[in-house]
Amino acid sequence: MTFQVTILGCSSARPTPSRHHTAHVLNVHEQFFLIDCGEGTQYQLTRYGINPLKLNVIFISHLHGDHVYGIFGLLSTMAMMGRQRALEIVAPKPFGDMLRSHFAFFQIELPYPLEIREVDARDVTEVWSNRAMTVISIPLRHRVPCCGYLFREREPGLNVHRHLVEGYGLNPLQIAALKRGEDAVLANGMPLTVAEATYRPYEPRSYAFCSDTTASGKVATLVEGVDLLYHEATYMHADKELAVKTGHTTALQAARLAKKAGVRYLLLGHYSSRYKDLEPLLAEARSEFPDTVLGRDGLVLALEKDHSLKIGSI
Amino acid sequence: MTFQVTILGCSSARPTPSRHHTAHVLNVHEQFFLIDCGEGTQYQLTRYGINPLKLNVIFISHLHGDHVYGIFGLLSTMAMMGRQRALEIVAPKPFGDMLRSHFAFFQIELPYPLEIREVDARDVTEVWSNRAMTVISIPLRHRVPCCGYLFREREPGLNVHRHLVEGYGLNPLQIAALKRGEDAVLANGMPLTVAEATYRPYEPRSYAFCSDTTASGKVATLVEGVDLLYHEATYMHADKELAVKTGHTTALQAARLAKKAGVRYLLLGHYSSRYKDLEPLLAEARSEFPDTVLGRDGLVLALEKDHSLKIGSI
Repeated sequence: MTFQVTILGCSSARPTPSRHHTAHVLNVHEQFFLIDCGEGTQYQLTRYGINPLKLNVIFISHLHGDHVYGIFGLLSTMAMMGRQRALEIVAPKPFGDMLRSHFAFFQIELPYPLEIREVDARDVTEVWSNRAMTVISIPLRHRVPCCGYLFREREPGLNVHRHLVEGYGLNPLQIAALKRGEDAVLANGMPLTVAEATYRPYEPRSYAFCSDTTASGKVATLVEGVDLLYHEATYMHADKELAVKTGHTTALQAARLAKKAGVRYLLLGHYSSRYKDLEPLLAEARSEFPDTVLGRDGLVLALEKDHSLKIGSI
Repeated sequence: MTFQVTILGCSSARPTPSRHHTAHVLNVHEQFFLIDCGEGTQYQLTRYGINPLKLNVIFISHLHGDHVYGIFGLLSTMAMMGRQRALEIVAPKPFGDMLRSHFAFFQIELPYPLEIREVDARDVTEVWSNRAMTVISIPLRHRVPCCGYLFREREPGLNVHRHLVEGYGLNPLQIAALKRGEDAVLANGMPLTVAEATYRPYEPRSYAFCSDTTASGKVATLVEGVDLLYHEATYMHADKELAVKTGHTTALQAARLAKKAGVRYLLLGHYSSRYKDLEPLLAEARSEFPDTVLGRDGLVLALEKDHSLKIGSI
């Protein structure tokens, strides 16, 4: 039951040779979700061994090029790769009109259905869900309508205690009933309650994606208690005037927000190209919130069932 | 007096990790021209040490994503880098409308002037020129309006034979007159004609860019005698049905065209991702036209003044 984030790009608007534009891949139970799609995302997917055809949904935070410009090529490449099943895109307005206009100019007709779900970036609402996960929009404050996304795993199904299965000799029907949350009746006519017979194998995990935005108390409330908070940290706090002016956040502000929200782990990203060395951003954030991770292209963060964070890189 | 082509990408529509989408940089006398601008061009420019602010003009062959999708990010990055001087873009219709529509959706106002010159892809006409070079459009046959470009260096200025300068003791005014193409009068009243006193230091060099297109006899006529012909070679000749169907050329067809046109060197590119190994395409072309070069990302081809080709890579 994977719950894993792969970072394809950690740069803000002006990229560097080692830092691509924003794009994250979220793997929840082997279903793949792309969050933002900066220029070069299709190259990064291939580089990191993620087949674009696996993508189920693309979530777009806002219509700035460094978060969107990879989508045109990616959609075409999926067509060339033979995609037939539908692709969903969740994005703020006017994403749909923009894409339709683009398709008209480029005479593009995709061979697979595209289902565009436009969100109002001011709303906190469930924008997507399946059996494994729900996704809630998080209003962000940026120069254009912009929304973050909170990906929350659904409660996993109930497990029945093995010693009871064996002790009472439970049959498959009884086990299935308990797993559905219904009390079972034992062979001797006595009830076996769900409460005593079952347990949740693990607590649901959560990932919040917040970029681009100024630091906002409202966001802190909305991401309260999440396991992993990705929050942009475009600038060092010494450059906080720039952050305010451009609608961004400093590493220190991101850390304060993480602390206030009581998240488990903070993941930084969207760094300005002015910083060649990113360690000072990490140090700044850790001074306020020690469980901070410096996002980098190719970094893989897996939330384990015990909510510990396993960090690797491709 | 540089005349040099750098290949930023040699892939057709579906890229591979080592083959980016089409983009060439032509350096003529240290002025820089970008020809096509596939996704990731801004990354490739940075990777190969070419400052995007140096670009004078961008030439676009046609409105297919693998030749254009890098332009949105590149234009924005140049803005962030502080570009103020005008940028020209030469492209077939409806490039201007497409870009204006795009800017409207993304609320983009560039801080530098953009001068878009739309060409009719059916015409053979001078689409651009400066003191060093003229550029002629080459109608290509593809699935959408598409034009190649023939970049032809202007004749270099006249030089005066050094032994005459010294022998006759020519003064700067006399030398300047001769260089302008005017006969000079010697101190003894005798004329010194341009014909006897001057020479061209070298013959003008030329580069033709032909992609995407089916093999066309008309193109062969238009690129007759050029020094370096870049011609797409998307497929092996065994796949020529595919080439016809998709509006592309095989390596063998490109070589036949080069032979017919009597060019000096043929440069291949725009390879289908189906070919992991490109050497067979090269071998196929060389069987017909030995002076063929296999284009690759990062390859640099310099046409020397004696029209020899110096090949290196970054």
